[in-house]
Amino acid sequence: MKTERDGPAGREFFTTRTVAEALAGFRPARRTAAQSVPLGQARHRVPVAAVAAPHPLPGFARSTVDGYAVRAADTYGVSEGLPGYLDVAGAVRMGEAPDVTVGPGTVVSMPTGGVLPPGADAVVMVEYTQEAAPGTIEVVRPVAPGDGVVRADEDAAAGADLVLAGRPLRAQDLGMLAAAGVTAVTVHARPRVAVLSTGDEVVPPETASLRPGQVRDATAVALAAMIADAGGEPRPGGIVPDDAAALEAALRAALTDSDLIVVSAGSSVGARDETAAAVARLGPPGIWCHGLAIRPGKPTLLAECAGVPVIGLPGNPRSALVVFRLIGVPLVRRVGGCASVPPEPVVRARLERDLASAAGRLDVVQVRLREGLAAPVFGLSALLSVLTAADGYVIVPEDATGLDAGSEVEVTLYR
Amino acid sequence: MKTERDGPAGREFFTTRTVAEALAGFRPARRTAAQSVPLGQARHRVPVAAVAAPHPLPGFARSTVDGYAVRAADTYGVSEGLPGYLDVAGAVRMGEAPDVTVGPGTVVSMPTGGVLPPGADAVVMVEYTQEAAPGTIEVVRPVAPGDGVVRADEDAAAGADLVLAGRPLRAQDLGMLAAAGVTAVTVHARPRVAVLSTGDEVVPPETASLRPGQVRDATAVALAAMIADAGGEPRPGGIVPDDAAALEAALRAALTDSDLIVVSAGSSVGARDETAAAVARLGPPGIWCHGLAIRPGKPTLLAECAGVPVIGLPGNPRSALVVFRLIGVPLVRRVGGCASVPPEPVVRARLERDLASAAGRLDVVQVRLREGLAAPVFGLSALLSVLTAADGYVIVPEDATGLDAGSEVEVTLYR
Repeated sequence: MKTERDGPAGREFFTTRTVAEALAGFRPARRTAAQSVPLGQARHRVPVAAVAAPHPLPGFARSTVDGYAVRAADTYGVSEGLPGYLDVAGAVRMGEAPDVTVGPGTVVSMPTGGVLPPGADAVVMVEYTQEAAPGTIEVVRPVAPGDGVVRADEDAAAGADLVLAGRPLRAQDLGMLAAAGVTAVTVHARPRVAVLSTGDEVVPPETASLRPGQVRDATAVALAAMIADAGGEPRPGGIVPDDAAALEAALRAALTDSDLIVVSAGSSVGARDETAAAVARLGPPGIWCHGLAIRPGKPTLLAECAGVPVIGLPGNPRSALVVFRLIGVPLVRRVGGCASVPPEPVVRARLERDLASAAGRLDVVQVRLREGLAAPVFGLSALLSVLTAADGYVIVPEDATGLDAGSEVEVTLYR
Repeated sequence: MKTERDGPAGREFFTTRTVAEALAGFRPARRTAAQSVPLGQARHRVPVAAVAAPHPLPGFARSTVDGYAVRAADTYGVSEGLPGYLDVAGAVRMGEAPDVTVGPGTVVSMPTGGVLPPGADAVVMVEYTQEAAPGTIEVVRPVAPGDGVVRADEDAAAGADLVLAGRPLRAQDLGMLAAAGVTAVTVHARPRVAVLSTGDEVVPPETASLRPGQVRDATAVALAAMIADAGGEPRPGGIVPDDAAALEAALRAALTDSDLIVVSAGSSVGARDETAAAVARLGPPGIWCHGLAIRPGKPTLLAECAGVPVIGLPGNPRSALVVFRLIGVPLVRRVGGCASVPPEPVVRARLERDLASAAGRLDVVQVRLREGLAAPVFGLSALLSVLTAADGYVIVPEDATGLDAGSEVEVTLYR
């Protein structure tokens, strides 16, 4: 971390941090409350606690093959040349309790998934049997106890953890809960993320025609999508004029019912100063850093005010979205109870040309992918088209002064 | 492809295909219809056509810095030692049209994002100026035309494609549409995916207590989650008894209002035969393959009946979910208009132990990740716990007979 003047004119005092410092060190304790949701609405939700199996699964010893339930010992030593002969004492039907027992020298016909009858300890596959006479089969291969059978608690023992705390529920986790008859899960509430836009030039996206100098609020729309992707509930806070009192009032209102506040600051230095001043007045512990060693995205503010994390994003749309993806998305996840941040899709590619970078600063470079080559998309921080033209991005880390053309890079894909 | 008998008892005729053949060759033409959705609901939706910019963006030449709008020629040759002196003719305010012109020898004060006034062709950063006298600044660095300025059509020219057909809309795409004032998008309807479960032993997940032999329907719940993740709309078709007429009736009902039908077949050979027979009666062109060279998941059926793709999944939950992820998810995406299937997150890891596999068959091996090591999770196809214990999976391709311990593998992560 360092405190520095921003440029020769010295208009701002920055407490600049690296992205690594921010990810490791800016860790607000806030977590959303617990709520119960039906299983059908629990996809990707984050359990507050592990869920234990109420009973063993599948709950009964089950055949894994079509065949005959048998006492394994009755098959020992049989072969193609010397088959064993066993009497068929009955048949198990799917979904029903067996009404027959397997005794010495007898078998019971089994469908895959049927309940192993009392007395049996294995199932011999139908392929290794054939009818020798009505009511008698010959068996040409031996089985060991347990062959062809799922134990009653083999999928889960009673009390075993079916799903873990802090990991978003995946398709198979929901299936496992369904198998156990768990129809509701206690999960973290979705983080309510207030999105405030500032700037006298910013107008709502539905503004049909613009006056000279006006721009529609693209950043808030894109942020809402990223917040939803991260499991949060975006709450549009509207557009606040470049006015200290108006901004402070909007922030205070958001503070009461938000788990995280995101401000896309006006793009001028004055507007950024106003955001910082308003945030500083919201409450302790206050501003954690004002300035990140990242390009694009330097004028980023991180704060925690009265228990609510606050992210002040740069005014340029591209910078704002780059920073939110790197810093904001993990924060939404964490506030929403995730123990670790789910990974993004990546591909490896060769860099099409040299990338220059300053040591000590993390650069996020948008790239297009073409036949294994990553071609940087260059353009100003103000241009959203750099992001829409890109398939993903390459990170030039703090300790590098650039990357050479032809080097292998990891491209994180936008989706 | 090959047609073979399944095992020595010869109960089934299989038309077995490889996974690669299925992905390349089973390509039903069905696509969902177009519908218009508001921008706020368009996240990850798939545009039917490219959307063109209705006007240039940002629509006016904009300053990218705080500073002074200037005629670049007025700064040529200036330096710290030999500053240029220029008169401040006025100031541009954010979001408003300039009411002043930049003439020779004059500048206009600019906030970042302000409209470049007539007569100016560049903006000099405030850091390279200072007030020399009231109403006069000195400039210590020259600028070239275009410096400090975004052109009126630099983010998008009028008529340029803002988003592409067939690619799910990402956060930045929504931002770009918002910037252009596009408030609704024509997208493919979500594919309606019917999910039918069969099996006399299968009961709904909300069944509080099970009779011996019964199992709750875990597969349908997990499939619904995967379908939703793929942009589809899962439609639970309930549980159909192991009865040819009942299954055919349920399939015919689903055919009328589904874009894709998924049947998780009963686990016994008889139940699978019944599914195949019922599907074969639904209509042409009929069954494309019955059997995939994959483990787990061999008894997979792919068909197209009366214009609707049908996937018959194996009865074992793990097999069903493995096959649906590999074959079903891309199909849902394609029916929903995706030109290519979005990638999944992957990590590289070293295999903890040898994996055996048969040539000609694709194996999907669930793994746990620990400190860069991928440890296979072994277990029967009937066990969902193999999937819930896993962080992801490794594919042993058709042309391999196994993978050696210590070799680098790509792990696709479950999420």
